Amino acid sequence: MHELTSIAALRERLAAERRAGRTIGLVPTMGYLHEGHISLAHAARRKVGKSGKVVVSIYVNPTQFGPKEDLSRYPRDFKRDRQFCRNAGVDAIFAPSDAEMYPGCGEATDEPAREDARPTFSTYVVEENLARGMEGVSRPTHFRGVTTVVAKLFNAVLPDFAVFGAKDFQQAVVVKRMVADLNFPLQIIIAPTVRESDGLAMSSRNRYLDAEQRAQAVILFHALQAAKQAVARKAIPATKLKKDLQKFFTAAPLGTLDYVEFFDPETLQPVAQVKRGTHMALAVFFGKTRLIDNGRL
Amino acid sequence: MHELTSIAALRERLAAERRAGRTIGLVPTMGYLHEGHISLAHAARRKVGKSGKVVVSIYVNPTQFGPKEDLSRYPRDFKRDRQFCRNAGVDAIFAPSDAEMYPGCGEATDEPAREDARPTFSTYVVEENLARGMEGVSRPTHFRGVTTVVAKLFNAVLPDFAVFGAKDFQQAVVVKRMVADLNFPLQIIIAPTVRESDGLAMSSRNRYLDAEQRAQAVILFHALQAAKQAVARKAIPATKLKKDLQKFFTAAPLGTLDYVEFFDPETLQPVAQVKRGTHMALAVFFGKTRLIDNGRL
Repeated sequence: MHELTSIAALRERLAAERRAGRTIGLVPTMGYLHEGHISLAHAARRKVGKSGKVVVSIYVNPTQFGPKEDLSRYPRDFKRDRQFCRNAGVDAIFAPSDAEMYPGCGEATDEPAREDARPTFSTYVVEENLARGMEGVSRPTHFRGVTTVVAKLFNAVLPDFAVFGAKDFQQAVVVKRMVADLNFPLQIIIAPTVRESDGLAMSSRNRYLDAEQRAQAVILFHALQAAKQAVARKAIPATKLKKDLQKFFTAAPLGTLDYVEFFDPETLQPVAQVKRGTHMALAVFFGKTRLIDNGRL
Repeated sequence: MHELTSIAALRERLAAERRAGRTIGLVPTMGYLHEGHISLAHAARRKVGKSGKVVVSIYVNPTQFGPKEDLSRYPRDFKRDRQFCRNAGVDAIFAPSDAEMYPGCGEATDEPAREDARPTFSTYVVEENLARGMEGVSRPTHFRGVTTVVAKLFNAVLPDFAVFGAKDFQQAVVVKRMVADLNFPLQIIIAPTVRESDGLAMSSRNRYLDAEQRAQAVILFHALQAAKQAVARKAIPATKLKKDLQKFFTAAPLGTLDYVEFFDPETLQPVAQVKRGTHMALAVFFGKTRLIDNGRL
């Protein structure tokens, strides 16, 4: 398994694979890998075949965190990630530094900006429709950071396809839109959410939860199940279903519902009537930890 | 010479060239070609060599025009452009339709948007520093349209390099910044401005000028020459040089100065003292026609 930290070295290695006619699949991650990520790597392997190459990028991307979010405490453990990747048969890890990805955007200093300072990173990719609702309301600069870093990773790796997890459903839809709009020459694969045995969606952020919060966190999954049952035989107005779910959430007093939305899975437009096949997404705070989940009802 | 209107057909053709190890150079244009564009195609040819491929894109990009600008009357003459390209030894013209570049963004209709309407184009590339001044002040959405369409063209063509004209100096600097920031795997070449015999920079928009305006339009070039002479031996405060140039412009009463700026050619930051090597750019209206020029003093 190769480990690369510079875009130049990564390109050199992958150019050789490409010349040899090998398919390249990319799995972009922020590290602290879990079974969910590994399922993405397996999906990539199935698609590239034995001779193709699976690249996992590991980069905690600062531009997708809000100023009051958990960038500094986001869990990192490269040794553990490396072992996960080895076990999963990954061919290469791309783990760049902030200086490699956003040159010139170092930590703020007390020194005044010099008159002859060279320009620093200043180009962003923004999706202005699908990124507005849900996560975009709660995290207004989040998707701009995601689309920007994903565009950079696509240009650095030039993969034939990239795999994203369905757990971050809106992210996957926004990235798909970006790929279509900007004509990136690659395919987006969305792989299913992997869950703990009780149903909690796997997430690097689950490690923030204490034992009590962890026990109650399964409420996100239960809410999805409850909504699925509720609309199995008849459509229900979204407003009514939201109220019912708010009541449902009294079973998890440590959780605070951030949002619950019912929407068309392609346009992400909210629907007035929730029925079988409608998509539901929700975000819940447990203390400072914000968990998300979603599913087709 | 090949003529392609779809990205799929273009990709298929260029993939074959790439597999054969041929270098690909792109010259993005809005058509209505003149000697300035042809000099860019020649620069591309010199760089790709005999066996490499020169692609000229011809597309009047709506997203880089402001709502009150000259999109609908922008000159178009594909037959003439084709002949220019043939004569210049261009290998392929890529001339997409609006529907190919911005699917779903047709002309506005009176029909109300349907609830189940599929999402349309919604992703933009924005450069937020170098694009702010000069042209960015006078044309606030211009560079966002430029960076977006250029990103699309880069992803469609996947060239080894792209050639831009120095006449649109700020555009070239903004595009260079985008390429560095988003890690596009290609090089940007800036080719010198080509001028008419009296010094007027070649531009498709020159055709809007009537005889009198055309005669006075050389004032842009003369202003650059005058500024060059003025700072040849000593630095001059930018405020003073601007005032002097405003007086100078009384020689062209049909022209209205939009801006004149003195700046560092890399950061585009205005300088207080103008000296040899400082870059100057200016924009002048002749009626509704807006001309720009620039140069190193």
